[in-house]
Amino acid sequence: MEERLRTRIAQIPTPSAEAAQAAALRQEQLTKPQGSLGRLERLSIQIAGIQGRERPRIEHKTIFTLAGDHGVARQGVSAYPAEVTPQMVFNFLAGGAGINVLARQAGARVVVADLGVNYDFPGPNRPLDKKVAMGTADMTQGPAMTREEAAKSILAGIELVDREKDLDILGTGDMGIGNTTPSAAITAVFTGRSVAEVTGRGTGVDDLGLAAKVAAIEKALAVNRPDPRDALDVLAKVGGFEIGGIAGLIIGGALRRAPVVIDGFISGAGALIASALAPSVRPYLIAAHQSVEVGHRYLLEHLGLNPILNLELRLGEGTGAALAIMICQAAAAVLNEMATFAEAGVSEKEE
Amino acid sequence: MEERLRTRIAQIPTPSAEAAQAAALRQEQLTKPQGSLGRLERLSIQIAGIQGRERPRIEHKTIFTLAGDHGVARQGVSAYPAEVTPQMVFNFLAGGAGINVLARQAGARVVVADLGVNYDFPGPNRPLDKKVAMGTADMTQGPAMTREEAAKSILAGIELVDREKDLDILGTGDMGIGNTTPSAAITAVFTGRSVAEVTGRGTGVDDLGLAAKVAAIEKALAVNRPDPRDALDVLAKVGGFEIGGIAGLIIGGALRRAPVVIDGFISGAGALIASALAPSVRPYLIAAHQSVEVGHRYLLEHLGLNPILNLELRLGEGTGAALAIMICQAAAAVLNEMATFAEAGVSEKEE
Repeated sequence: MEERLRTRIAQIPTPSAEAAQAAALRQEQLTKPQGSLGRLERLSIQIAGIQGRERPRIEHKTIFTLAGDHGVARQGVSAYPAEVTPQMVFNFLAGGAGINVLARQAGARVVVADLGVNYDFPGPNRPLDKKVAMGTADMTQGPAMTREEAAKSILAGIELVDREKDLDILGTGDMGIGNTTPSAAITAVFTGRSVAEVTGRGTGVDDLGLAAKVAAIEKALAVNRPDPRDALDVLAKVGGFEIGGIAGLIIGGALRRAPVVIDGFISGAGALIASALAPSVRPYLIAAHQSVEVGHRYLLEHLGLNPILNLELRLGEGTGAALAIMICQAAAAVLNEMATFAEAGVSEKEE
Repeated sequence: MEERLRTRIAQIPTPSAEAAQAAALRQEQLTKPQGSLGRLERLSIQIAGIQGRERPRIEHKTIFTLAGDHGVARQGVSAYPAEVTPQMVFNFLAGGAGINVLARQAGARVVVADLGVNYDFPGPNRPLDKKVAMGTADMTQGPAMTREEAAKSILAGIELVDREKDLDILGTGDMGIGNTTPSAAITAVFTGRSVAEVTGRGTGVDDLGLAAKVAAIEKALAVNRPDPRDALDVLAKVGGFEIGGIAGLIIGGALRRAPVVIDGFISGAGALIASALAPSVRPYLIAAHQSVEVGHRYLLEHLGLNPILNLELRLGEGTGAALAIMICQAAAAVLNEMATFAEAGVSEKEE
C-alpha cells in the first residue's frame, strides 16, 4: 500500500516553465497597465504552467467533498452530534447544501465520497464508496488509524481524481463532525505552534467546548507522539480518513497537471500531509481563502500560500474552493480573451 | 440643474428592514453552522434589504463604464498619453478590454458611456453620448468644470441607470487617462489626509511622475479651495466628468433599489461625492475590492466600507466590480437555494 503510494508520488510532473513564461509575456501585451490585474495575472501564469498550456483551459471543474467520522468526537469537541456527518452527505446528494449551491455558481460538479463515515449508506442514492473504516478511533486513546489505513485513505483520494474523465481544475472539500480537531492536531505537529494557538471553535463550540478540544488534542499528541518528519505517521496517529483523502486529491491533481484549489482548515491539514509526503505537489496548490479558524493562518504560512479570498468562511465542504475557482476561471479568461495593444490599436506606456 | 438633482436625491427610498430581517432569519435555518458563510451571509441580508425581497434576485446585472478626459493630464501625471482614453473606449465597444472579459464571466452587460472624452466619436460604433464637455479644464489653473457641469455629470449618471429596463445589481467603472489625480484630490478633501498620503502611482508613473502628481494636486487644492461641506463644489473644482457620472450611477442605483457595487479608487471618489451629497445612498453601497492605489484604504475607511476582495487590482473600468458581483450573486444563491435543517432532516446544534 505504502509502496504503491510512493510510486504514484514519484510520477508527479514539474509544471511547465515554458508555458508559464509564454503566459507572462502575453500578460504584458494585453490592453492594461502591466500588473494592473494583480493576483489574477499571477494566477493565470501559475495555471498556465501547471496545465502546460500558454492559454489555460478551465471548463471541467470538479469539487470533491470527502466525508469521514472521528472517534475523538466522543470527547465533546464539536457543537453538532456525529450523526450530522451522514445527514449532511444525504444533503450533498440531494443538492441542498452550501457546496451544491456554490458549485452550481462556479459551474463545477460535486463528487461526494465516503472515506470513513460511521454509517452504512443504502443504495442507490449514496456517495462514492471509498470507505476505509467506520470512522477513526479516538486519538486521545491511541492512533486514529493504522499506518496501512492512512496510506489507503490517500490512495483513495488519488483514485477519485483518476476516475474523472475530464478535469481542468479541482477543489477540495470535507465533511466530518469533529474534524477541526485532527486538523488542529496536524497543524500543531507541522508548524510547531502550541495546540492553544492553532485550535479554534470549529462549527461553534463555546468556551468549555474549546477547552475540551484543546485538552483532547494535547492528550492525543502526548499519547501518540506523531513524528513531523513522517507524514504518514502524523496522519495515522492524529488524522482522519477524509483528511488523508484530501491529501490524495492533491497528489492526484498534481499527477493530472490540474491546479488544486484547497478549501479551508481541514483541506489545509490535508495539504500539510500531502506536501510533507510529496513536496513536488507544492506548485500545484492554490489556497482558496483565509478561514476564520485560528490555526489556518499558521497552516498557510507554513505552506507558503497566500489565500485568494477572505470572506470569513468556516463551513468547509469545499465552499471556499468553489468561490475561488470562479476567480481562477476569471484569471484564465483574462489571459485568453483580452485584446493585445497591437490588436486593439491602443498606445502603450510612455517611456 | 442642481434643483433637479436635489429632487431626485429626495426620492431615494430606505432599504426594507423587514426584508433584511426575514433574510437573516432564513440564514439561521439553512443547513450550516450559523454565521459559517461569513461575509456571504451578511451580503445576502444587505441585498435582501436593498431590493426589498426576502429572496433577492440577481439576474440582470449591468456594469457602467464611464469615460472622461482630464485637463490635468497635461501636467504629466499619467504614464499613458491622453489619446488612450478614446482608444480604450473603442476597445470596450469591441469587447477586448479587461472589463469585457470579466463582465462576461459575471454574466453582466457592459454599458459604455462618454461623459467627457476629448474626442468626437463617429457613429454608429460609439459609446452612449452623455458628453458634458471635451474633457475637464486643468484643475491646477482653476476649476475643472463649472458647478452647472458638475450637476449635469451627476444627472447623466442617474439617467444612465434610469434607461436600464431590468436591473437587479449594478457595478460602477471608469476610464480616463489622468483620473487617479482628481480622485486623490477628492479623497484628500473629504478624508482630511495629506495629498502625499492619498496619492499613488495610478497606471504606473515613476518617482518623478509621482512627485509631479502630488505637486499638481497640492496646487489644484491651493488654487481652488474646494469646500468639503459642499460636494458639488468639490466635484466642480477638482473632479472629473466620469467621476460625477459615477456619483450619479450610485444615486440612480439607490433610486432603483439596486445594490451598487463600487469598483476601485476612481469609483470610490465618485462614492465620496455621492455620499456627501446624498447620505441616504450609503446602505446601497458595496465595496468591490481593496485597490493597490494607496489612497483607497482611507477612502473606504471614510465611507465605512469593508471591501469584498483584495486581489491587488488597479485597472479600473469596473473590473473589480465584475468580480465582486460574482460573489454577491453567490451570496444571494446561498440564501435562495440552500436547504433548511427541517427540509434536509439534519440535526441542529446541541445546546
